[in-house]
Amino acid sequence: MRPHPDYEILKQLFPHIRNYQRLAEAHGINDIFQDNGGKLLQVLLILNLEVLPGREGNDARDAQGNEYELKSVNINLTKSFSTHHHMNPTIIAKYRQVDWIFAIYKGIEIQSIYRLTPDNMEYFYSKWERKWHGDGGKDINNPKIPLRYVQEHGTLLYSVET
Amino acid sequence: MRPHPDYEILKQLFPHIRNYQRLAEAHGINDIFQDNGGKLLQVLLILNLEVLPGREGNDARDAQGNEYELKSVNINLTKSFSTHHHMNPTIIAKYRQVDWIFAIYKGIEIQSIYRLTPDNMEYFYSKWERKWHGDGGKDINNPKIPLRYVQEHGTLLYSVET
Repeated sequence: MRPHPDYEILKQLFPHIRNYQRLAEAHGINDIFQDNGGKLLQVLLILNLEVLPGREGNDARDAQGNEYELKSVNINLTKSFSTHHHMNPTIIAKYRQVDWIFAIYKGIEIQSIYRLTPDNMEYFYSKWERKWHGDGGKDINNPKIPLRYVQEHGTLLYSVET
Repeated sequence: MRPHPDYEILKQLFPHIRNYQRLAEAHGINDIFQDNGGKLLQVLLILNLEVLPGREGNDARDAQGNEYELKSVNINLTKSFSTHHHMNPTIIAKYRQVDWIFAIYKGIEIQSIYRLTPDNMEYFYSKWERKWHGDGGKDINNPKIPLRYVQEHGTLLYSVET
């Protein structure tokens, strides 16, 4: 079995990939190639946040101790943000405690970052709660947050164009 | 808001990350930071396989037209391979047509690659079918394939130590 000729290019690039992974590990990210780890690193560094290890939801914290829920989207693939695969009032109650940070990517290229406060997010919390109760207490599978809503209601924290 | 000082390191590394992403795209991988894209690229190049775009299961093909199901595991995190979230006889019938390629990683560092033939895999196919019928036709949620089984029954295609 013979490798593809491009394997030589990969081998030349890999020391830099390894450095990126090392930087990620120093900031609490296990694996840049899973779950958008390599993008999360960039968002953390731009906003000077640290990850909260082993936590589900409320993923990051700033120097003042404020916690944030972090989300990213690749707009080459989809125009809405994923949330949680078992959305219910317990999860929503946790979400209500924090601001959300939304990072918008084209492929691996960051475009912009927005922050939404609990007030900005309440539209969704109320809607999800109504649905959950209306469905007799059935968890909602990953209700989406549209990109357009984030751009219209959020505060722009970072833009590649500025 | 002020970025973390390490953001300068990230910015220096990012042109190389971009080159890695470009190489990945040339081989049909959209995003190195999702779904182990950056690892899949390495496996494809080492084995000289090409991805089959937009296909579920039987993920790659060699120059002779043989198809393969590709799996990877990060043994720092877990000692078994994921399979399919809705395993059933239709999926198993597709699996029986191909060899499986198992790539073993520590973090982002490849350790070894094994190939298992349909005969090597039949133990699981029979077991999953029995369970599916025994449960009255209920899909099995992601039955695992232990690392040890792969190492004991597979053919070693690549090892970092050789």
